[in-house]
Amino acid sequence: MPNDHAIPGFYAVIPAGGVGSRLWPLSRADAPKFLHDLTGSGQTLLRDTFDRLAPLSGEQRIMVVTGRAHRGAVESQLPALEDLNVVLESEPRDSSAAIGLAAAILERREPGVVIGSFAADHVITGAALFREAVVEAVASAEAGYIATIGIRPTEPAVGFGYIHCGESLSIEGAPHGLLVESFVEKPDLATARTYVSGGDHLWNAGMFIARASVILEELGRNRPELLAGLLELAEAWDDPATRGPAVDRIWPRLEKIAIDYSVAEPAAAAGRLVVIPGLFGWDDVGDFASLAKLNSRGRASDLAILGRDARVLSDASSGIVVTQTKRVISLIGVKDIVVVDTPDALLVTTAEHAQRVKSVVDALKLSGSSDVL
Amino acid sequence: MPNDHAIPGFYAVIPAGGVGSRLWPLSRADAPKFLHDLTGSGQTLLRDTFDRLAPLSGEQRIMVVTGRAHRGAVESQLPALEDLNVVLESEPRDSSAAIGLAAAILERREPGVVIGSFAADHVITGAALFREAVVEAVASAEAGYIATIGIRPTEPAVGFGYIHCGESLSIEGAPHGLLVESFVEKPDLATARTYVSGGDHLWNAGMFIARASVILEELGRNRPELLAGLLELAEAWDDPATRGPAVDRIWPRLEKIAIDYSVAEPAAAAGRLVVIPGLFGWDDVGDFASLAKLNSRGRASDLAILGRDARVLSDASSGIVVTQTKRVISLIGVKDIVVVDTPDALLVTTAEHAQRVKSVVDALKLSGSSDVL
Repeated sequence: MPNDHAIPGFYAVIPAGGVGSRLWPLSRADAPKFLHDLTGSGQTLLRDTFDRLAPLSGEQRIMVVTGRAHRGAVESQLPALEDLNVVLESEPRDSSAAIGLAAAILERREPGVVIGSFAADHVITGAALFREAVVEAVASAEAGYIATIGIRPTEPAVGFGYIHCGESLSIEGAPHGLLVESFVEKPDLATARTYVSGGDHLWNAGMFIARASVILEELGRNRPELLAGLLELAEAWDDPATRGPAVDRIWPRLEKIAIDYSVAEPAAAAGRLVVIPGLFGWDDVGDFASLAKLNSRGRASDLAILGRDARVLSDASSGIVVTQTKRVISLIGVKDIVVVDTPDALLVTTAEHAQRVKSVVDALKLSGSSDVL
Repeated sequence: MPNDHAIPGFYAVIPAGGVGSRLWPLSRADAPKFLHDLTGSGQTLLRDTFDRLAPLSGEQRIMVVTGRAHRGAVESQLPALEDLNVVLESEPRDSSAAIGLAAAILERREPGVVIGSFAADHVITGAALFREAVVEAVASAEAGYIATIGIRPTEPAVGFGYIHCGESLSIEGAPHGLLVESFVEKPDLATARTYVSGGDHLWNAGMFIARASVILEELGRNRPELLAGLLELAEAWDDPATRGPAVDRIWPRLEKIAIDYSVAEPAAAAGRLVVIPGLFGWDDVGDFASLAKLNSRGRASDLAILGRDARVLSDASSGIVVTQTKRVISLIGVKDIVVVDTPDALLVTTAEHAQRVKSVVDALKLSGSSDVL
């Protein structure tokens, strides 16, 4: 198969939902992580994701599931996105509802379709390697499996979940596919080290590729009520007259559960989950420490600076400054510093404490400061 | 002498010139340190200084020497200040010119007057103790000495100059007056410790009290050209028709030199300088570390917060946040942090590095970023 043609029968789904609280005050309700340029590429992560998937599925075969509030931003970011492929959530109901609804709609439109779900806000480098992995994942999906793509760890990261790989499955068209033994929650550093040296653990990048019907089948086995709601919604979806009332009636009642628990883990327990090792570069940019790392790679100075109008005067040799303002930012004698400067909120922390940013967001919610969330 | 009456014959002079570069970006050319409320008192340091001196000299007997650019701010801060007591500099020429001009003008107006010069941007607590020291200083001035008030050190500070005290002088009305042996530049920590334990060193607070004629005489001995310029200026001063041309002609040519070098040190060498130990609280608020200390004293949490609209969310147990904006400021996992948040500039440093802020100002000048200076 030539490298610049779409993979036959493949449909890409981009759930664009999460705010990215650990990237506050950059990411927030009205400007979630996927609407930011976090790599200096000049375009948003969402657009990067769309552009990465378009050669694999075709531009007309990408569906985006996002919140109503983001409709305008998503459509202006992705002018090539088909109108009927914008699925709007009236409120967030987690990934089972988002991906399950996409699966149900697409299965009705095109029975037997293979869908692949890819986060809107991850950073991936190495298009050819990414393509190779997706091709094998689609082949696995056609063989009836649910496929995921696991990332070969480059370090003992404690911020990611891991996939414990089992035997080779010898699926036609997916020579590198391995049975998934289990999913492992974020480990401690010592455990992460054994994973990296052991070689049979991959990072869980949250990518799932399967026939839409297989995902719905797994949902039905584990969450029959959720499936029933999604099927009812999907039936009403493509008629504008019935869609709105169905959303109002059904969506708010859907169970909030991550697809990892409703589909992936049960499927793994049933021997139905295959992992394709991905050798491309991947980062979920989960906090400012990883954003700093991502942006300082290969630079002479290790202080990363993100911001179109950044005016930074600093003797810091590490850390990151993210700015959305034109203010002069001066750093003196601070190490591994994280400074995030937005018009209405300022964050100062260190790479070491970057994971704790979410607690600030929680505190701001409790204190009624939702104007800056 | 009752404690609420003016000291006869005494005239106060407030040189309000310095920007306070080490307090950038709070202090800057158009908003120098003396125009800020740094203590949470609700009024500027200049106003605090005026209010402190008014009971000693009378409101009508306070002269302020400041830059032309600050005329409006000074007059609105000090509505009780007499028009003829606002002396405007066309450009900064250091303290010999500022205080020397005040002395020359006041000596013409009132021969034999005793003047006292007090910085516009220091923080002083303990009005009664301050008064006692000034009363003794004025008595010393009337006996022909130049008096200074030295502060009894409370810690081995390395940010201040010191005064080495000699024998008691038994001046009438100044029982605590000691001969000044010498002025000592900012010491290292070990030396400062010996000063504090030794007991014969006081902090140099830059206060000078003397007959105006004595200051002019010392200036004439050490800097005759400077004195000649000042006398010529003073002669033209009180006539609006002659003042402007005289300023334009003479002021820019005056030597820039601190009064410490043109008057105080030579007078000390000549045995003409007396120091009155001051037991009141004093701080020159030279940098953000001292500002933090000043504002956290006696608080449950040690993080000092200055700013009328401050919205700070922090787990920091030490340091200072100064804000002129309404932004939410969140600090996570940072210690001894200094965050100064202004509309067009942000500074992040630590108490330890606070002295280095001046170098940022220098760098900004060099890089042409004078818009934020």
